[in-house]
Amino acid sequence: MDKYLENLLSPHERTELCSSVLPALLDSISNIADSLREAHHVSLAGTTNAFGDGQLNVDILAEDILRAALKKCPAVMTMSSEEDPVERSAGESEKSLSEQYTIAFDPLDGSSIIAPNWTVGTIIGIWDGPSALNQNPSTKQIAAVLGVYGPRTTAIVALNLPNGERHCIEIGIGKPESMNHEIIRPEVQLAEPPFKTRYFAPANLRCAAENGRYMDLITHFVSNKYTLRYSGGLVPDVVHALVKGHGVYVSPVTTESDAKLRRLYELFPIALVIEAAGGKTVDPANGEDILARSVAHCDERAGLICGTTEEVDRIKKALLGL
Amino acid sequence: MDKYLENLLSPHERTELCSSVLPALLDSISNIADSLREAHHVSLAGTTNAFGDGQLNVDILAEDILRAALKKCPAVMTMSSEEDPVERSAGESEKSLSEQYTIAFDPLDGSSIIAPNWTVGTIIGIWDGPSALNQNPSTKQIAAVLGVYGPRTTAIVALNLPNGERHCIEIGIGKPESMNHEIIRPEVQLAEPPFKTRYFAPANLRCAAENGRYMDLITHFVSNKYTLRYSGGLVPDVVHALVKGHGVYVSPVTTESDAKLRRLYELFPIALVIEAAGGKTVDPANGEDILARSVAHCDERAGLICGTTEEVDRIKKALLGL
Repeated sequence: MDKYLENLLSPHERTELCSSVLPALLDSISNIADSLREAHHVSLAGTTNAFGDGQLNVDILAEDILRAALKKCPAVMTMSSEEDPVERSAGESEKSLSEQYTIAFDPLDGSSIIAPNWTVGTIIGIWDGPSALNQNPSTKQIAAVLGVYGPRTTAIVALNLPNGERHCIEIGIGKPESMNHEIIRPEVQLAEPPFKTRYFAPANLRCAAENGRYMDLITHFVSNKYTLRYSGGLVPDVVHALVKGHGVYVSPVTTESDAKLRRLYELFPIALVIEAAGGKTVDPANGEDILARSVAHCDERAGLICGTTEEVDRIKKALLGL
Repeated sequence: MDKYLENLLSPHERTELCSSVLPALLDSISNIADSLREAHHVSLAGTTNAFGDGQLNVDILAEDILRAALKKCPAVMTMSSEEDPVERSAGESEKSLSEQYTIAFDPLDGSSIIAPNWTVGTIIGIWDGPSALNQNPSTKQIAAVLGVYGPRTTAIVALNLPNGERHCIEIGIGKPESMNHEIIRPEVQLAEPPFKTRYFAPANLRCAAENGRYMDLITHFVSNKYTLRYSGGLVPDVVHALVKGHGVYVSPVTTESDAKLRRLYELFPIALVIEAAGGKTVDPANGEDILARSVAHCDERAGLICGTTEEVDRIKKALLGL
């Protein structure tokens, strides 16, 4: 795996990214997987009352593993996360290095499906420079990593190279003690139609009760015999499309239902992954590309339409008339 | 854990079940989990062409682990599985034992979601006597076990005692080398309404394109703001309801869409689990209780409505007018 990433990154002065930051993130994903595997007490959190507590413990566990690993990377200047949404100095970074990165992450996404033991994930964006705020995501977010905790542990790495090339790679994560991660698919690409079956993942479905356009869209999916796959976890839902080679995820926003997805910790990394795989990600509020707009604050939010380009364009039209 | 099961089973002459068969099954689940964790090559099966092969390998792996473990249990007379749907002698059983069991299992359920690394499961029914065919499921299927392979490994064990008592237990599965399984919840019970939110899992949703009643039911769920959770894996979908304490799973059957779920390997064990947790399971073709009817052949199939009793009754009425 190391060799493959090195070949992609070596012409672009990303030595620290390749030799330190990405390995630290993949090893963290391995360690988070190992900790989750032992965290049987989370199952106790099945009831609504107890859930807050259990969720918090596992979130903090993942947060701590990531922060501890990133602190050891000399090129990491700044960190912020969904659990602590403020950009803070990583502390021990070497300011003399030519590479300086900011890491923005959601340590454990999918809290509602942790208790039933469904697949959950980690979402990480890597930014060039000492801050992710007021930066152009399409050029300054130079990599993204998704950790997928299911029967196996896998990761999706997206690279956004200075020459405009984008790569999406699926990696099988090794055991924490060995860390021998292996490339499963060197170039993840969403396929072109025709498709034998079409997948759809309708998030925030309750929106459809008050939004006729979303309801019509759901009816369209059903009438056209799309296959439903919706876990309610952003990482497994997006990775499903990447592994199957096609599919679409829709999380609309209505006046009655607020946008829930954080741009910095969820949307930007997901968008880079999907675009690197040849797909599209747009804001359902206005049809704008997710990566076309920077954030001024860590907690800005939006909805999401993402996946196979042809489907995203159709859904954009259906929801917005654009 | 051993003590808890022993206390429940000791008055009922189930010594072998308690000391040999259930431990063998739980240890097998631990071993299957361990093997799945290493099976990164399954990810290669993301494409339609390659999928058949990858799926087969993992299925056979799980099948082999279960058969090898069960062969060592003196009270196991007969085995059959979704991979080899014929009742065969287990070989080395001791016919002099007062306990004689038949094991019917689906070694790895959820083949379509293995490649994207979503939670999958094992489904096992344990029957009193040398065959499960032409036996009354509600008395002769004396236990069921679901293995859940996600970020953790968990199991649901349902016991159907001769005195009519039924118990549903959630177990945290330990590492293969240690096998120290622990009780997570000694009595899993579906709650009574009211619910803060209601969950629905609509399987075989393409049916709704040709079945107005199913389409109306979907519209009912959406209009009433139910929360959608549908992975497409029977085990995770059912376990979601058990862990959340409520929810409903619907897999209808129409003239255009055949019944897909095997009664012996899927429906009977799932039905025992759900009923032991205080829920209900009915056949969407006629509203009959799933456990009310025996099978003459290993591969008889049906649809399924299961979960919270109040919801199952409402859906039965909506789909059948009963």
